[in-house]
Amino acid sequence: MVHEFGTATTAPPSSILIEHLSPELDCGRYPVKREVGDVLRVEADIFKEGHDRIAAVVRYRRWDDSEWLEADMHHVDNDRWAGSFLLPENTRYCYTVQAFSDVFRTWREGLEKKAAAGQDVGSELQEGLEIVAEAMERADEDDRLLFQRTIQAVGEAASQGIAVRLMLGDELDAAMRRHRSRAGAAIYVPELSVVVDRVGARYAAWYELFPRSAGRIPGQSGTFADAAARLPAIKAMGFDVIYFPPIHPIGRINRKGKNNSLVAGPDDPGSPYAIGNETGGHDAVEPSLGTLDDFRVFVEAARSVGMDVALDFAIQCAPDHPWVKDHPDWFYVRPDGTIKYAENPPKKYEDIYPINFETADWRNLWQELKRIVLFWIDQGVTIFRVDNPHTKPTVFWEWLIAEVQQVHPETIFLSEAFTRPKVMKALAKAGFTQSYTYFTWRNFKRELTEYLIELTQSEMAEYFRGNFFTSTPDILPVILQEGGRPAFKMRIALAATLSSVYGMYSGYELCEATPVPGKEEYLNSEKYEYKVWDWDRPGNIVDFVTAINRMRREHPALHEYDNLRFYPADDDNVVCYGKATADHSDIVVGVVNLDPFQPHEATIHLPVEDFGINSDEQYRATDLLTGETFIWTGGAQHLRLDPHEEPARFFSLQRWARVDYAEPCF
Amino acid sequence: MVHEFGTATTAPPSSILIEHLSPELDCGRYPVKREVGDVLRVEADIFKEGHDRIAAVVRYRRWDDSEWLEADMHHVDNDRWAGSFLLPENTRYCYTVQAFSDVFRTWREGLEKKAAAGQDVGSELQEGLEIVAEAMERADEDDRLLFQRTIQAVGEAASQGIAVRLMLGDELDAAMRRHRSRAGAAIYVPELSVVVDRVGARYAAWYELFPRSAGRIPGQSGTFADAAARLPAIKAMGFDVIYFPPIHPIGRINRKGKNNSLVAGPDDPGSPYAIGNETGGHDAVEPSLGTLDDFRVFVEAARSVGMDVALDFAIQCAPDHPWVKDHPDWFYVRPDGTIKYAENPPKKYEDIYPINFETADWRNLWQELKRIVLFWIDQGVTIFRVDNPHTKPTVFWEWLIAEVQQVHPETIFLSEAFTRPKVMKALAKAGFTQSYTYFTWRNFKRELTEYLIELTQSEMAEYFRGNFFTSTPDILPVILQEGGRPAFKMRIALAATLSSVYGMYSGYELCEATPVPGKEEYLNSEKYEYKVWDWDRPGNIVDFVTAINRMRREHPALHEYDNLRFYPADDDNVVCYGKATADHSDIVVGVVNLDPFQPHEATIHLPVEDFGINSDEQYRATDLLTGETFIWTGGAQHLRLDPHEEPARFFSLQRWARVDYAEPCF
Repeated sequence: MVHEFGTATTAPPSSILIEHLSPELDCGRYPVKREVGDVLRVEADIFKEGHDRIAAVVRYRRWDDSEWLEADMHHVDNDRWAGSFLLPENTRYCYTVQAFSDVFRTWREGLEKKAAAGQDVGSELQEGLEIVAEAMERADEDDRLLFQRTIQAVGEAASQGIAVRLMLGDELDAAMRRHRSRAGAAIYVPELSVVVDRVGARYAAWYELFPRSAGRIPGQSGTFADAAARLPAIKAMGFDVIYFPPIHPIGRINRKGKNNSLVAGPDDPGSPYAIGNETGGHDAVEPSLGTLDDFRVFVEAARSVGMDVALDFAIQCAPDHPWVKDHPDWFYVRPDGTIKYAENPPKKYEDIYPINFETADWRNLWQELKRIVLFWIDQGVTIFRVDNPHTKPTVFWEWLIAEVQQVHPETIFLSEAFTRPKVMKALAKAGFTQSYTYFTWRNFKRELTEYLIELTQSEMAEYFRGNFFTSTPDILPVILQEGGRPAFKMRIALAATLSSVYGMYSGYELCEATPVPGKEEYLNSEKYEYKVWDWDRPGNIVDFVTAINRMRREHPALHEYDNLRFYPADDDNVVCYGKATADHSDIVVGVVNLDPFQPHEATIHLPVEDFGINSDEQYRATDLLTGETFIWTGGAQHLRLDPHEEPARFFSLQRWARVDYAEPCF
Repeated sequence: MVHEFGTATTAPPSSILIEHLSPELDCGRYPVKREVGDVLRVEADIFKEGHDRIAAVVRYRRWDDSEWLEADMHHVDNDRWAGSFLLPENTRYCYTVQAFSDVFRTWREGLEKKAAAGQDVGSELQEGLEIVAEAMERADEDDRLLFQRTIQAVGEAASQGIAVRLMLGDELDAAMRRHRSRAGAAIYVPELSVVVDRVGARYAAWYELFPRSAGRIPGQSGTFADAAARLPAIKAMGFDVIYFPPIHPIGRINRKGKNNSLVAGPDDPGSPYAIGNETGGHDAVEPSLGTLDDFRVFVEAARSVGMDVALDFAIQCAPDHPWVKDHPDWFYVRPDGTIKYAENPPKKYEDIYPINFETADWRNLWQELKRIVLFWIDQGVTIFRVDNPHTKPTVFWEWLIAEVQQVHPETIFLSEAFTRPKVMKALAKAGFTQSYTYFTWRNFKRELTEYLIELTQSEMAEYFRGNFFTSTPDILPVILQEGGRPAFKMRIALAATLSSVYGMYSGYELCEATPVPGKEEYLNSEKYEYKVWDWDRPGNIVDFVTAINRMRREHPALHEYDNLRFYPADDDNVVCYGKATADHSDIVVGVVNLDPFQPHEATIHLPVEDFGINSDEQYRATDLLTGETFIWTGGAQHLRLDPHEEPARFFSLQRWARVDYAEPCF
């Protein structure tokens, strides 16, 4: 209750208040996220008692650099101040705000008013000279000379009017600004931080592939070499990341058979999520896929076409994982000494042993998990899709990701947590670069709009990047089961444009949609068997996916995440939205019919004046999928969308190029 | 960037997250405020990975007591938990939240499901017995006996079914709950605090009086004795607090004359805000009012009629204040060594020296100011109305108020800051018990509604108690200048019911409204001269004020601050609102015509079902000013308000008392 200000009889505590700094997450407990090249805008309420002029700066530094840099802040309105700085590197920056009384400006303002009112300002001029003299010790040689000359000239001035004009000079003001006293400065506590990821954290198209399904011989495992042979086609579709489910040896004990059956046949390969057998664990490769060297060759092949490789990180073990023998204390043990399999009572998962993160040997466990991540980074993996992170302690992920990114800041971690909203948010705050979302189940206009506004316009945009998957090996949504090809086109168009980072699970381009009856699961899922695909299967949407990804690549507005805005469309089946670059040089508007069965028409209402287009001015709307050009006027436009033709239309808006002869032209 | 968890190989860091605790102000930087007898409801997001059951408690203690008490929290929804505890004393409490895994409940739930599915649970029963045995060491004798008996009975059970029933027993569950393990518990950081003020901080009617205007002889100062003679009449009007502007010796140098003129006549008493002369400073009494003993007699007289005495605390000095001689370094000094008077360039206030809070001698200055507050507390003053606190450092007030309330928690500080919104809020957060508001200038429906919703329904309600003054010696609002008697009735009705704490400046009951032309100031203000009032002046509203205060006293709903709700009224001149106690035993609805010139009619729409009244049910509405009774049905009621009769009507709503013979009656 009692304040302690120390015992030194120096200056009193600063009387400047700095409040409600933004961006700030949970009182500085977690960093916010940005990407290389972004400018971080920092705002705060800053004020002090009385009428003194104040000044403020944003202070920032690389986390591993002790030297602070500064950016000036300016008053916005109602005691709110703002300043910003560039984030040039893939690292973490610390930032805070410092504010102090601007003694010279306060004095200058008083002098101006008194002089204008014709008052005698002899005493004020003396004070001003003292302020200038005090700044001398901080000044560089040029400014020191200016100060000296000013002091001398004021002393010799023929009249008070001349002295006042000298002291109000712009040059003096600028120099005094450069050497302001920081006495009585306040500094915001705590120091905040921003994780600056590479641009791929925000803008990328992922392609998910089981390498064992990349082969051509039925009943036999595809290999890394088969997967490499698929790369040109995947790249041609426009994907940037190739993501593999686990590639490690698969357990033999209690192995699952086709369609998740309890008993595996002798040739069933098992689920790759049952990790580990006598040939190795998380740092080994399933022999039927190839060798570790083969994997490295695959990584090199991906790199050569400009793609990143993402690997699954699933912290769980088959009963025959080496850890079970070497570290039985890392598992849950029954009173009779046997190890517990995973369960969600009364369901049992007998092919999986979960890890006990509360083991007394937790330090070694954590270090081993970190070693595994670094091991795969050494093999060229730059992205980890983490399986079920919400069943492991968030504090562990916070530690792991920070440790890894400290040496490999380029590493991206995607959280595969489909669980309660606050748990998903906590994982993102704790460090996950990207997160799976509820997008997969948001089908209709109101639920899509509400969810996307939360993701991109609320505080979540500071730390949670939603990676939109249209389907996953675990989820075949009802809309795809029922809606057929129009639904496949519509959903990938949404995923690829609502978010700047999205993913497609292989087979999607073939409109694969046969479910386990009554469930959101694929029948004959490749999670449990070898598959061979006809990648040119009739009815495929390869061309559509290619066109969507080309459109994304060509339009910088679609590279951004939090620039999404929804616009009115007067039909409940039609959603209209847009993204624009900050300077409005690129504006893309999407109009999507969410009903895969019936055509719908709607009048959309675009905020053209926000785009710098007058409401009575003609502008060009280019259909980015068909190439057609339209000349539109005003925000209200009427469109018809037939899901069997084009369920989604995207328009690039441009002001009509005009030659204006108001200026003489030679 | 790297996390440090210490080197002991003990348990891993807690994996439970506690976030977004409420109430919490500015990350725990400031305490929230409540009043004696309130229940503090604490909420937080609490969750951990996986499916374990968790439990949570609010921990709390008096700030000066090291022993923590606990209140259980319960899950509300979506990982939000809540718990509450009573605030019985006028002091400060600390609180936080602790959460931990509920091992027994987690185990119990699994057992229930497995047993219901007919699975063998032999291993589970063994685990359960181990959990019970572990709890033994924390148990009291009775529960230890219960645990021992249960373990024995389960061991001897004739069947697994019997053992399961024994382990699922309610008595065992309750006992295990009493002795839960806190291993792996998480505790919320930082520790938060709540200032519990006396009820008078929230509910009081203030009466402001210049004691020198309480006399009966023109041109001569009234005295404390004259003021004491006024007390019965003021108390009879229903006021709880009598507040005096400064009572200290008034400076002679540069003393202001009538109507703030620059030159005082020989008999002009000067402004009481120009404090200090050769007879003393802030701890002295202006001799024309009486002696310090006379003041103490006045305080005793106020106490005897149940009133608190509030004194002004204006930290500024007349040029002849003793500090000017004794502590010249507490003031701003010009280059020529003279002391600066107050100014707001180009305006000059030559009768006032402001204090330099950045003096090197600030520790002695702060101590002296604290000494003065404690001095007046020793004379029986319990409330300080602080003049212009926003021209002194907020950090000083934070220190002063905490220091004083640590020994005198009953002391109330009212912030007289009419300035920018964030500065006013910062002073309240820093410790001021109550604050002046913009109410005085909020006349029309939309601005009144918006402002009151911010005060009572936003985060401000946690720390900012608006004390609504209808006018002050510095402010005669235009609505009162123009609106006459109807405006005086309307504005005091609003002040007294929109806020639970309000103030009236003497003369208001006489409808005194003569302005300095074109200004919001009183002509011939008693700030600069002796006045004698006819307290029974024709046209006075003493009876109306008395009725309003009686209504306030009789209705507990009006003693609360943040229970204000606005209801629709379909005329822009008519505002409708209500206050209810939490149990709806008292419901008061106000309907006020904001136009003091013309009658208006409106249909109001009351949310009767929120009050526990069916929409088709008759209920009683008693007009609290006229005593009339109405029988109403439904929320829509049509009313006419003539400002020249009753500009404001207040209704107490009650369900119709009914005798129900559905139950047999003998």
